[in-house]
Amino acid sequence: MMTGKNYIGNQLSAKGNKTFKTFNPELNQENKTVFTEATKEEINEAVNLASEAFKQFREISGQKKAAFLNTIADEILALDHLLINMYCSETGLPEGRAKGERGRTIGQLRSFANLVAEGCWVEATIDTAQPNREPLPKSDIRKMLIPIGPVVVFGASNFPLAYSTAGGDTAAALAAGCPVIVKSHPMHAGTGELVSSAIVKAAQKIGMPKGVFSNLNSSGIDVGQQLVAHPKIKAVGFTGSIKGGRALYDLAAKREEPIPVFAEMGSINPVVILPKALENRNQEIAKTYAGSITLGTGQFCTNPGLLLAIKSDGLTNFIKNLYEEISKIIPSCMLHPNIKKGYEINKEKVISQNNVSVVANFSSEVQNNYAQQAVVTVDGKSFLENPDLHLEVFGPFSMIVECENEVELEVIISKLEGQLTGTVISDNHEISKYSKVISALQNRVGRIIFNGVPTGVEVCESMVHGGPYPASTDSRFSAVGITSIKRWVRPFSYQDWPNELLPEALQNDNPLDIFRIIDGIRSKEVTNE
Amino acid sequence: MMTGKNYIGNQLSAKGNKTFKTFNPELNQENKTVFTEATKEEINEAVNLASEAFKQFREISGQKKAAFLNTIADEILALDHLLINMYCSETGLPEGRAKGERGRTIGQLRSFANLVAEGCWVEATIDTAQPNREPLPKSDIRKMLIPIGPVVVFGASNFPLAYSTAGGDTAAALAAGCPVIVKSHPMHAGTGELVSSAIVKAAQKIGMPKGVFSNLNSSGIDVGQQLVAHPKIKAVGFTGSIKGGRALYDLAAKREEPIPVFAEMGSINPVVILPKALENRNQEIAKTYAGSITLGTGQFCTNPGLLLAIKSDGLTNFIKNLYEEISKIIPSCMLHPNIKKGYEINKEKVISQNNVSVVANFSSEVQNNYAQQAVVTVDGKSFLENPDLHLEVFGPFSMIVECENEVELEVIISKLEGQLTGTVISDNHEISKYSKVISALQNRVGRIIFNGVPTGVEVCESMVHGGPYPASTDSRFSAVGITSIKRWVRPFSYQDWPNELLPEALQNDNPLDIFRIIDGIRSKEVTNE
Repeated sequence: MMTGKNYIGNQLSAKGNKTFKTFNPELNQENKTVFTEATKEEINEAVNLASEAFKQFREISGQKKAAFLNTIADEILALDHLLINMYCSETGLPEGRAKGERGRTIGQLRSFANLVAEGCWVEATIDTAQPNREPLPKSDIRKMLIPIGPVVVFGASNFPLAYSTAGGDTAAALAAGCPVIVKSHPMHAGTGELVSSAIVKAAQKIGMPKGVFSNLNSSGIDVGQQLVAHPKIKAVGFTGSIKGGRALYDLAAKREEPIPVFAEMGSINPVVILPKALENRNQEIAKTYAGSITLGTGQFCTNPGLLLAIKSDGLTNFIKNLYEEISKIIPSCMLHPNIKKGYEINKEKVISQNNVSVVANFSSEVQNNYAQQAVVTVDGKSFLENPDLHLEVFGPFSMIVECENEVELEVIISKLEGQLTGTVISDNHEISKYSKVISALQNRVGRIIFNGVPTGVEVCESMVHGGPYPASTDSRFSAVGITSIKRWVRPFSYQDWPNELLPEALQNDNPLDIFRIIDGIRSKEVTNE
Repeated sequence: MMTGKNYIGNQLSAKGNKTFKTFNPELNQENKTVFTEATKEEINEAVNLASEAFKQFREISGQKKAAFLNTIADEILALDHLLINMYCSETGLPEGRAKGERGRTIGQLRSFANLVAEGCWVEATIDTAQPNREPLPKSDIRKMLIPIGPVVVFGASNFPLAYSTAGGDTAAALAAGCPVIVKSHPMHAGTGELVSSAIVKAAQKIGMPKGVFSNLNSSGIDVGQQLVAHPKIKAVGFTGSIKGGRALYDLAAKREEPIPVFAEMGSINPVVILPKALENRNQEIAKTYAGSITLGTGQFCTNPGLLLAIKSDGLTNFIKNLYEEISKIIPSCMLHPNIKKGYEINKEKVISQNNVSVVANFSSEVQNNYAQQAVVTVDGKSFLENPDLHLEVFGPFSMIVECENEVELEVIISKLEGQLTGTVISDNHEISKYSKVISALQNRVGRIIFNGVPTGVEVCESMVHGGPYPASTDSRFSAVGITSIKRWVRPFSYQDWPNELLPEALQNDNPLDIFRIIDGIRSKEVTNE
């Protein structure tokens, strides 16, 4: 069943001689399938096909794109145990997580299908002509969103389904009308091949142009770099490390024609715990955060890596309680030996900094590739002065910063790098006394949470997953939810264009029956010629 | 009245010793006012003030922002003849144009005022909580657009009012809630100072935070570069040359925290003239285009610099007719001796290329700084192979490319650099036979025009002024119309946030009475707690 080959459009292809295997971290052994890396020739084939496919795909109806997306979802479900087993064997994640993530992936595909089938998302806007206007007549002008061109998607190590091959970036790009080339993540290339086979089946069933989707294997950075540098690629989606995302951003910015790179990168997700909450709910907060810090072995981009509070007896108590609660958590497997190695190195690096004290560092022996969770503390001044303490430790780790007072707390927050989320733990009306702190926090994040945990990103229209750099390369967009389609589209105007040649969304009689803004008024009305 | 100083917030300031003067191209002499360039210290002052102002300004109500924008418009009108005379003395443009552009500027300010007073533009989106959802409860999540931070605006040489100090970029940024620092264009620094005085008066009248606006003088590139590199600047708007825009884009991309640069740059605005139109309306089209090519001395970014047609007797005829029509046009003044010099150099460069023939090159003597309009022809193959023929000649110049056939026409269009506009001149149903040509054209431009001219950019919601690179650095946004506000905002989510602490746009009882999307349905309804 598994081939280890690339999908160049609908064709399996393996012209190269560089190969690699994926790894089962639970069993601590390599998986069997041998994956062949894409060659330069195959990259060009995939891009040229995508560029040709774009000519047709960009004009395909919303109904047909919806059928494509829904059929991808169906075909993914049809892979059934094959996919779930493959997922688990390549990630060390449990079956429940695999099924949950598959559900999320299916949900995303279907929500984009609904969006484009319904059709209003193109933001059709019509300003009718005023031939008798003085001093100059006014033309008829009509605008809608159109796809930007072939998109390259880089899968995430920590979401083999929901943010990889047929994940949020791909679903949004296909919904927009952009062909997609996935640079498969080498840690779960088998999961990638299975999902790709589902997409290719769906493309053939629905009659999509050849090259609307390709999937390229690679264990290094060359394939990705060549894709991003290719003149026919028009945008890039990435989920991963700051180093990786920034390298692609820099590469894209240096092109003769720079292209947008939407990279969702690192975040330490600051959590501000206010004094009264520590007084009244110390144990409960400690328990909740022990869970959030270790959820999914801490391998979420919204993992709470930074807990900020003002020095008090409550805080001292909280540190003890968090120690107790996090010590109770049974260690779990990380995605890959390299991820585990990175976790250990980064954890040790933080621990070795001046004025950092270890609160908890799970010390019993664990299985290979299992992570030992840890919590450390540091004073506010040291944190402020040492940028090494601001780095993300990807894994079940968090740092408590003990601030001298409210002013130091505000300064620390205002000097934080950009973050995906910020959380405030507050009792009753306590928060209203901290308006400067909250305002500073809002300015550094994409989403702010009250009395909750940052882990768990609801997929819905009002979700923002993104934020000021380096949480993402462009805070003006979200990577989650239906509005993430806006990363892959551009507005386009038709001036005095013949009605019969306009796309249906802009035609006088509104054949798609969508809401449009006509001369400033939103309606489903028809317009006059 | 004129001081030649910078506005650092509300304060006039001239700490430097580098000075310059503006130039009256009609009189061919320098104007009197001595302008003092901003120093590094003044730049830092302006940026720090803007950053502080942002803390308040980002939370100011839409009503108050609207009052600010409307008062700016009032104060600009109150400058009356002083402004119009200054404009003319610094541009060589006639009074009618000055007044027209002032009207456009006022219109833009008021349309953004209306937008933010009305309030729906924040795209408020609410997904209500589902505490009993299985397997996990769903949080209440609410999203809206918020300002991105202090914005730097670079004024345009060719629109001293509408795309400079209080032009589209500034109006959109202030409407969004972003403080603005204008890098004044050195060719019309006096116009810039007058408009700045109007903005500062309005800021004081309405009680805006100090530093919500600054205006910095400079005749070189240092001030602009320092502004774009400053860590507290969060976005950049620019209108001008490809070289200038790209330099700023590169600088911003290299920052530790890269920031978005929206630059509206060069365009040669291809016009495709189809055979039947040449048969039936040859003289009329020639006359219309002689007018469009020379309008405003050809100094519009939408100037039709490239006319594409298939070889025919009609085309030969058209070349003759265009020669006759354009020879009738009386030359007019350019904005500045440097612009005139650039025009001559670029025109000569094109004329000197292989296989380029001069159709018309107005040869009578003209006043100093007046432009001699010109039209040249070249064959399709030469145009395709020589990138020097694709460069914008800023001024009253156009090139006719004589294509061998429809296939060559399509290839030429598909290989064009990105453009602001594309125009098709067609008779009756002729256009429907050229679907590949039209599709290729659409893929290279931001706006497509039927049987018109690209000059004349209507300010309305359905206008797109932007396009694939190098027409703009990010085709996903427009520089004209109320949606241009989206360049300066980012989406932001509140999760389970206390109702009384939410911004009014997201509060349960909808105090702003705006349309919101609640659980997928657009309405003005209140929500439950």
